[in-house]
Amino acid sequence: MPQSLEALVADFEAGKSAALARAVSIVENHRAGYDELMTRLHPHIGRAQRLGITGPPGAGKSTVTNLIVQSLRQEGHTVGVIAVDPTSPFTGGALLGDRVRMESVALDPGVYIRSMATRGSLGGLSARTAEVADVLDAFGFDRIIIETVGVGQTELDIARTADTTVVVLVPESGDSIQTLKAGVMEIADIFVVNKGDRPGADRLRNDIELMLGLRRGSAGGVPAHHGVQLKTFNPIRIAREAARAEDPERWTPPVLGTIASRGEGIDLLLAAVARHFRYLEMSGALKGRRRIRLRNQVAEVVAERVRNRLWDDPETNVWLDAQLDLLESGAATPFSVADELLRRSGPLLTGVDA
Amino acid sequence: MPQSLEALVADFEAGKSAALARAVSIVENHRAGYDELMTRLHPHIGRAQRLGITGPPGAGKSTVTNLIVQSLRQEGHTVGVIAVDPTSPFTGGALLGDRVRMESVALDPGVYIRSMATRGSLGGLSARTAEVADVLDAFGFDRIIIETVGVGQTELDIARTADTTVVVLVPESGDSIQTLKAGVMEIADIFVVNKGDRPGADRLRNDIELMLGLRRGSAGGVPAHHGVQLKTFNPIRIAREAARAEDPERWTPPVLGTIASRGEGIDLLLAAVARHFRYLEMSGALKGRRRIRLRNQVAEVVAERVRNRLWDDPETNVWLDAQLDLLESGAATPFSVADELLRRSGPLLTGVDA
Repeated sequence: MPQSLEALVADFEAGKSAALARAVSIVENHRAGYDELMTRLHPHIGRAQRLGITGPPGAGKSTVTNLIVQSLRQEGHTVGVIAVDPTSPFTGGALLGDRVRMESVALDPGVYIRSMATRGSLGGLSARTAEVADVLDAFGFDRIIIETVGVGQTELDIARTADTTVVVLVPESGDSIQTLKAGVMEIADIFVVNKGDRPGADRLRNDIELMLGLRRGSAGGVPAHHGVQLKTFNPIRIAREAARAEDPERWTPPVLGTIASRGEGIDLLLAAVARHFRYLEMSGALKGRRRIRLRNQVAEVVAERVRNRLWDDPETNVWLDAQLDLLESGAATPFSVADELLRRSGPLLTGVDA
Repeated sequence: MPQSLEALVADFEAGKSAALARAVSIVENHRAGYDELMTRLHPHIGRAQRLGITGPPGAGKSTVTNLIVQSLRQEGHTVGVIAVDPTSPFTGGALLGDRVRMESVALDPGVYIRSMATRGSLGGLSARTAEVADVLDAFGFDRIIIETVGVGQTELDIARTADTTVVVLVPESGDSIQTLKAGVMEIADIFVVNKGDRPGADRLRNDIELMLGLRRGSAGGVPAHHGVQLKTFNPIRIAREAARAEDPERWTPPVLGTIASRGEGIDLLLAAVARHFRYLEMSGALKGRRRIRLRNQVAEVVAERVRNRLWDDPETNVWLDAQLDLLESGAATPFSVADELLRRSGPLLTGVDA
């Protein structure tokens, strides 16, 4: 390990914020020393609770995040925030204009805010976000919030790296909950209907609950009704629900209402987050989620190793250049060339001399 | 090759549109038979001219595309269009609301329009778009248009897979051309300032030209002035430019103006596209671009092979599960586990028994 990296780790462990910023940069961009740095931080990872917040543009995620940070600070927790925004390659600005600057908390030394742009290959973004969260975790933040604008599967993948994922919706985000894609239903641990004073908010909350019930229908389950009145009284449903409430193996996402612009509903949201975290601990799901995170991390490192070992190798590139003539003439196909390349690259791929 | 795939290839080669749609689906989703299908189509790929069209939301790309398709049809060319739109996972609809349906050309049998959503992993999207373009190429379309909303690097990567890339901008797309990111300047073969009747259009065109000059400044180059009057007369610049105009090795992106809503400027745009294609052929750049495309395709197949061979292997998964305990306890790191996994996976990765 280079001496400069030793010094960085020493400063990092001493809690110096400049060292934190440098470590995040190295990890975010996979700069030289990234492997060694992550290896050094690895034993310190795993203490923080991670909260993912996602939703469509304009749902008020940033406002909700801001309020959550304030509440967590009042409870004495330190908070790291990773905000993942898609930026336009044409204007350099935020694509969706959704970011509310967190001015009220930006000067608090117990809060660290890091923006990550969805520039570069999106392929690895969820992996890199998880790694930056690892750095904040190792630094000692009690809570880590990962906020993403839900513009695609990648953003859902990012939110999924958290322990608890909150999906923020607004009445106007769709004519009907029917349009919510399956991926969203799968990742949400808690639903928030923000702008709850607008027309359609109650209907949206009801629709989400019904959908949760439908999705669980074949397993005999029905949605719990946190915070909304169900329209019809159904004794069978209520009995089932009561039974499930005692079963720590099941979690039914609550559907909460907030009016973030007035700060309303954030206390209930934080209570639900805390309840979900206890459920994760009790049921063993926390361990499961963290193991999935570690597994994905190994898979990402493997993919990156393979990429670097093959394409940084001059001989492989010379060989491939020679194959391009065959590809152009139609005598070979990308599949036959890829198979041949893998066949001849054993020592390169394994890192073991033949 | 399964019999059903033989039948599909026969129908495809007979020019049946249902076979085209099925082939595109198989390739887009990498369904069973995708390898064999692409292998069969490979010799027929390479005849079509590929045009990429990108730009920020609201620049009028779809209208420009629509007009280009109409003009190409009038010239007797068949046209395949691939429209890549980001869709919201929350509403299922187009994220940026930018798509103008191409009703006027949709019923023309000489036109095929395929929408690809940026769902699923964005990582492989540019590779898959290039593959779908290969399918349209093999089917016999003379021209293929790949239209993407420029929401990130991925969209630029997609546009880059074309032979000629047109970047469509509008006066209001930014306060200043200074905000255009480097990636955009690199991929543009032709700039179009659409909505040329709006305030700021001339200024934007001038700014782009100046920027092109600055970027080439160190190489002694200056921008050619296609379609705009430069503000100052500079004899050295004009002499240099004249010298370069005769050099088929150099291409200076022209900056054109259009008012797509009135159909103005499309003829000049198509002339520039034709000129660029002749330049690509004369300079050898066409061959170079197509070789890069083949190279990227091999790299994508290699990455997918590695992924499938490792993670579809039950033994590897069992082994990794056992490592997770060490990862959790901090006795191992994702890097040490990845390295060990690659060390022990030689036969699996190469496809050759040890």
